[in-house]
Parts: sequence; structure tokens; C-alpha cells
Amino acid sequence: MTARNPDAARDIPEATVARLPVYLRALTTLADAGTATCSSEELAAAAGVNSAKLRKDLSYLGSYGTRGVGYDVEYLTYQIAREIGVTQDWPVVIVGIGNLGHALANYSGFRSRGFRVVALLDADPRRHDELVAGIEVRPFDELEHIVVESGVAIGVIATPAVAAQAVADRMVAAGITSILNFAPGVISVPDGVDVRKVDLSIELQILAYHEQRKAAGADAREVVR
Amino acid sequence: MTARNPDAARDIPEATVARLPVYLRALTTLADAGTATCSSEELAAAAGVNSAKLRKDLSYLGSYGTRGVGYDVEYLTYQIAREIGVTQDWPVVIVGIGNLGHALANYSGFRSRGFRVVALLDADPRRHDELVAGIEVRPFDELEHIVVESGVAIGVIATPAVAAQAVADRMVAAGITSILNFAPGVISVPDGVDVRKVDLSIELQILAYHEQRKAAGADAREVVR
Repeated sequence: MTARNPDAARDIPEATVARLPVYLRALTTLADAGTATCSSEELAAAAGVNSAKLRKDLSYLGSYGTRGVGYDVEYLTYQIAREIGVTQDWPVVIVGIGNLGHALANYSGFRSRGFRVVALLDADPRRHDELVAGIEVRPFDELEHIVVESGVAIGVIATPAVAAQAVADRMVAAGITSILNFAPGVISVPDGVDVRKVDLSIELQILAYHEQRKAAGADAREVVR
Repeated sequence: MTARNPDAARDIPEATVARLPVYLRALTTLADAGTATCSSEELAAAAGVNSAKLRKDLSYLGSYGTRGVGYDVEYLTYQIAREIGVTQDWPVVIVGIGNLGHALANYSGFRSRGFRVVALLDADPRRHDELVAGIEVRPFDELEHIVVESGVAIGVIATPAVAAQAVADRMVAAGITSILNFAPGVISVPDGVDVRKVDLSIELQILAYHEQRKAAGADAREVVR
């Protein structure tokens, strides 16, 4: 039994969990700009949510700010980071070192949030021994060994779609319990394993929705003119 | 005045807008599996939301399904796609053709949602004339010309952080009104321009939260044992 955040067993709604990293990013931006305290309105604006929702979300963490002063940026950052668990070190393995795998291995946002890429694996022997972000690309067959050796709980799949399910199966068999899947298509895993999927087109679709409305608005103005 | 979705001016809450692409993805998965109709519970499970929220979201689109039958997968797909605007063709330009730019140019999820990459631009002359996903990489200076020629409204920034603001400024000056920013850091744009930021570490943080809880649960069981 290791020492852990004693509050980690409380239930926080999934939608709130999904917003905590967004608040963390907004707080980092405020801190980088030299802001020491902020109102819920300022933080909500920086995070792109309304302030009532922000206050509700933070209340699950027992964070209410100080009346007339607001939130202490540094302390709230620590509270959220602890709640998410990114004050810990998370060893991560990336499988599939094509263009996307290269980009992920070089992505500074992982390291700054406690995610440490301990291995890059690829099934293609032509990629082996290449150094990416200072890490050697190794054969996929070393997965089981690396998971045990480095205590890896989180695996990232950046392979083509056709390989994703087989990679996920091997990850789960090796003891990985959380998978971030960048490959198109759905992978199935046993109960107790979490999968999150990154769909790079979702944000583009949200932009398209607003573009369509801007265009409709412009047309309406044209008709009135 | 061109023919557009007459309903596009109705106000849909931003959180609902953000979920519409997720429903669209879930519907595509159901259709690929040969499902013709689905209950709100099935669709909600496939999309990872609760079914009351799904029904509320779809009610903004005037989609209520048929009692005892559920939703027609094909028709609901069309309704959502039309509402988002992805039944239209959206020409997109990608600036910064490093590893991430390569990965984005090759990403099949853009094309399947109506986003057509019309140009790949990079400031580095050594990248010019390279073919990526069948498209020639061209000098960044051609941006203005391409935006006008192809009617580009959406730009994607995949440059290093240090170049992102300058690229955004040029995009806005050229007439682009929506920007998807993959570069770390914040970019500022004038009113009327939408920016969405992709933070690849957010999904990892959500996994970390659940990993931490799994570990806490395992520890608790250990103590009880």
C-alpha cells in the first residue's frame, strides 16, 4: 500500500473529469502570464466555460476560492493536478512510430503533464534503432518486457487502423489498463481497461458548425440590405 | 444568397454542438456494423453519454425518434451532418508540414467528414515540391493566393509554437475565419474568428484520473483482504 491521494475515491461526474484538464491548461496560461489570483469569471473565460459550471466543478474538489479575492492560481493548479493524478509520474509506451508516432514522441505537452514516454515500439524492423526525441525505436515484441520493467499502465496506439486491435490485445495481455487510441476505428477491450479515442476531425467539425452559422448570418444581412 | 440549411440560425448550446460530432462518429460505427435503427440507449452507449442527455441534445435538431422503434441511423446521420455543416465541402489549408503536418495530411478522418485539404504550406524551402498524401508542399507565401482561389475558410496550424501567432495573423489577414491550432500555446485573433485548440494530452489526463482511481481501489481491496 503506497501513499495516495485520500480523496481519490470520491465520485466526480465524468463531464467534470473531462473539464479538469481544460482548467489546468487555463491555469497554466494564467500562471505563465504572471497572474497569482483569478476570479471564477476570469478562469471560466480562459477555459471557455461559463462561471457557474466552473464553480460547480471545482466544488467537487472542495475548492471554493476566497470571497473578494478569487482563486489562488498556484494552489488551485496543485489541487486539480493532484485530483487528476498528474502530480504522479506516468510511464507511457507509444506503439507505431510513423508520422503521428514521431509527432507524439516529440509532443512537449505530455512531459509537462507527468507523462514520460519510456519506449517507442514498432513492428517494422526498418524503424528500429532510429532515435526519436532521444528515444530508440525498439521491436514491438519487447512490449511485455517493457511494461513490467517500467510499470507502464498507459499505452498509446498510433498504428494504422488494421493493426490497432492486435496491438490493444497485446497491451492488455501485458498488463496495460488504459489505452489512448489514435487509430481510426473502434477497438474492444475487456472490462476494467479504459480506452479513450482521439478523433482529430471533431474540433474541425465544431469549427464547421460555426462557419456555417457565420455564412448564414452574412446571407441574412445581405437579404436585409 | 445561396441555398443553406434554413434551421442553421437556431441556437444550440455549445456543449451540445461539441457532442454532435461524437454522435456522428457513433452513428457511423453503427451503420458500418449494419445497424439500420437504434434506441437512444444504444446510441448513447456508443457515444459514451447518458441517454437522457442524448435525447435532449437531439431534440434541438427536432429529432425525437419513433416510439418503440428508435432512431433511423441513416436519417439521423444526415440530420446531424447537415446541422454541423459537414454535408458541405470545406476546403482546408494546413500550414507546417513536419511530422504532425504529414500525419494530418494523411488523416482519413478529415476527408470522410467533408474536409478537403486543398494545400500544404511550409516556410522551409527544403520541404517544397515534396508530395504528401498526393499534395505538393508549397511556400507559405502562397497562402493569400490559395485562400482566395479555393475559398478557404478553415486553416490548420501545425507549426512549432514560436511560429503559430505569425501564421494565425497571416491567415486572418488572408480571410480565414476559423483556425484549428495544434501548436502549443495560445494565439490571439480578432472578434469574428474562431479558434479551436487541440491538446493531445487532455485525453491522457482523463485516463490518468481513472488509473489513479483503479490503483486506489486496488489498494483499498488489499487493505481489506
